[in-house]
Amino acid sequence: MAVAQAAPGIVCVGLGPGDPELMSVKAHRLVRHARHVAFFRKKGRPGKARQVVDGLLAPAATEYPMEYPVTTELPVDSPEYVAQLAAFYDDWCAQLETLARSEQVVVLCEGDPFLYGSFMHLYTRLRERAAVRLEVVPGIPGMVGCWHATGEPITWGDDVLSVMTGTLPEDELVRRMQTADALVVMKVGRNLPRIRRALQRTGRLDAAWLVQNGTTASEQVAKLTAVSDEACPYFAIVLVHGQGRRPEVAW
Amino acid sequence: MAVAQAAPGIVCVGLGPGDPELMSVKAHRLVRHARHVAFFRKKGRPGKARQVVDGLLAPAATEYPMEYPVTTELPVDSPEYVAQLAAFYDDWCAQLETLARSEQVVVLCEGDPFLYGSFMHLYTRLRERAAVRLEVVPGIPGMVGCWHATGEPITWGDDVLSVMTGTLPEDELVRRMQTADALVVMKVGRNLPRIRRALQRTGRLDAAWLVQNGTTASEQVAKLTAVSDEACPYFAIVLVHGQGRRPEVAW
Ligand SMILES: C[S@@+](CC[C@H](N)C(=O)[O-])C[C@H]1O[C@@H](n2cnc3c(N)ncnc32)[C@H](O)[C@@H]1O
Ligand SMILES: C[S@@+](CC[C@H](N)C(=O)[O-])C[C@H]1O[C@@H](n2cnc3c(N)ncnc32)[C@H](O)[C@@H]1O
Repeated sequence: MAVAQAAPGIVCVGLGPGDPELMSVKAHRLVRHARHVAFFRKKGRPGKARQVVDGLLAPAATEYPMEYPVTTELPVDSPEYVAQLAAFYDDWCAQLETLARSEQVVVLCEGDPFLYGSFMHLYTRLRERAAVRLEVVPGIPGMVGCWHATGEPITWGDDVLSVMTGTLPEDELVRRMQTADALVVMKVGRNLPRIRRALQRTGRLDAAWLVQNGTTASEQVAKLTAVSDEACPYFAIVLVHGQGRRPEVAW
Repeated sequence: MAVAQAAPGIVCVGLGPGDPELMSVKAHRLVRHARHVAFFRKKGRPGKARQVVDGLLAPAATEYPMEYPVTTELPVDSPEYVAQLAAFYDDWCAQLETLARSEQVVVLCEGDPFLYGSFMHLYTRLRERAAVRLEVVPGIPGMVGCWHATGEPITWGDDVLSVMTGTLPEDELVRRMQTADALVVMKVGRNLPRIRRALQRTGRLDAAWLVQNGTTASEQVAKLTAVSDEACPYFAIVLVHGQGRRPEVAW
């Protein structure tokens, strides 16, 4: 089994929302046995995914921090931002491919890798260009950990759940919120004032929750109306629970 | 540790999409050590959640199948359906509470318990009426396993993902699909013809996938246009992937 696990190639593992106990059995085993571990991080930061596996990696594991060349300094739709990010992904695609010809490389990803994950940009490149084995292991998305942190189910009956990013313009947020029953807004951070205004305009503000660092030691859960816009971290999610049909109410 | 785990109370564990390797480390441990295991099922069926843990339960575990009194025989909004279901949940709430005063009862739930899960109806009752410890362990939702089965990421950039149930009327499906980029439709089964018409009306039919029993041995993945409406199981999900911003395209 140890031999099969170490088959050369690139395996991206979804780590779940943050609590290491919420990693899948498969992800946990792959991480513990990994000899080469790559992960994204902002320059000068430990990296959220890397933090989740603290204490789980083998002492002999080699680490490959993939540092974003740019994060919030440039607008995401500027040609410069796009060019820098594309070059960054191209470069890591080539580096990981070289390594993965003879070794197994485990790429760490917070939450689920296929839901707004940075790995997706490596994945599409590797799939097109590289001749190495590629595997992706699903994980519990961060939002799932966050709705559990509130202690309330997210959808009932025929509720529609809409998941959006706080980076959308205010009018777009409003338009998308209007046809949703339950709501998840990701990538909160400095987008919080705009998200708050959109919730206000759609009559959802009083029902909204803010969960920071869900399922981790620094988890914070509060009604959105009870927190200010200042110093909200990027690893935060705004939630509105659905109120759909349930068989305790007669209607 | 074994003692702490067996603390009296009710622990609902999310089992993930179907592959037992995708259970969380915590869920896996709770299931292996469980002495009392409850799960929902349709009369005369093994129960989807119960199938996921086949071979994992201790031989001495006592099983409590909770059989729905009614599923598709009555319309979900008829007073009779509501009354029968409410009585069913009331009854199991009382039974599990009695047991959980002295024992730990593990309730199995497919996917994540707080996303359209039957356990939620026990949860709200137990929380209100019972004096027993209640814990819920998040799981990978079925839809996450299903988008991995297609091998394609579900959301890019600022894509909005909307999750809905195939039980909605056709015009509602259309209205909700119109403000979504990526789409997940759950509870497919005999609702497939209506879902298909709504996709057609919103120009999404050609991009849609159908995943049956995702991540299990009987997984089937196909473009929706390649499958007929007949004999689609309830454990199936319709997916449309988002096409949002990514830094390989210059725009
Ligand atoms: C680039 S996206 C990656 C999402 C990830 N692939 C997932 O499945 O959750 C980053 C966003 O995920 C959200 N997020 C992920 N995990 C979280 C957690 N434990 N607590 C709060 N927010 C979280 C935050 O909104 C953050 O801005
Ligand atoms: C009552 S809902 C329960 C959802 C569950 N709590 C979850 O998080 O996935 C049942 C629906 O889940 C979907 N589903 C769950 N797991 C699935 C899987 N592995 N493959 C296909 N559909 C699945 C189907 O659409 C099914 O009709």
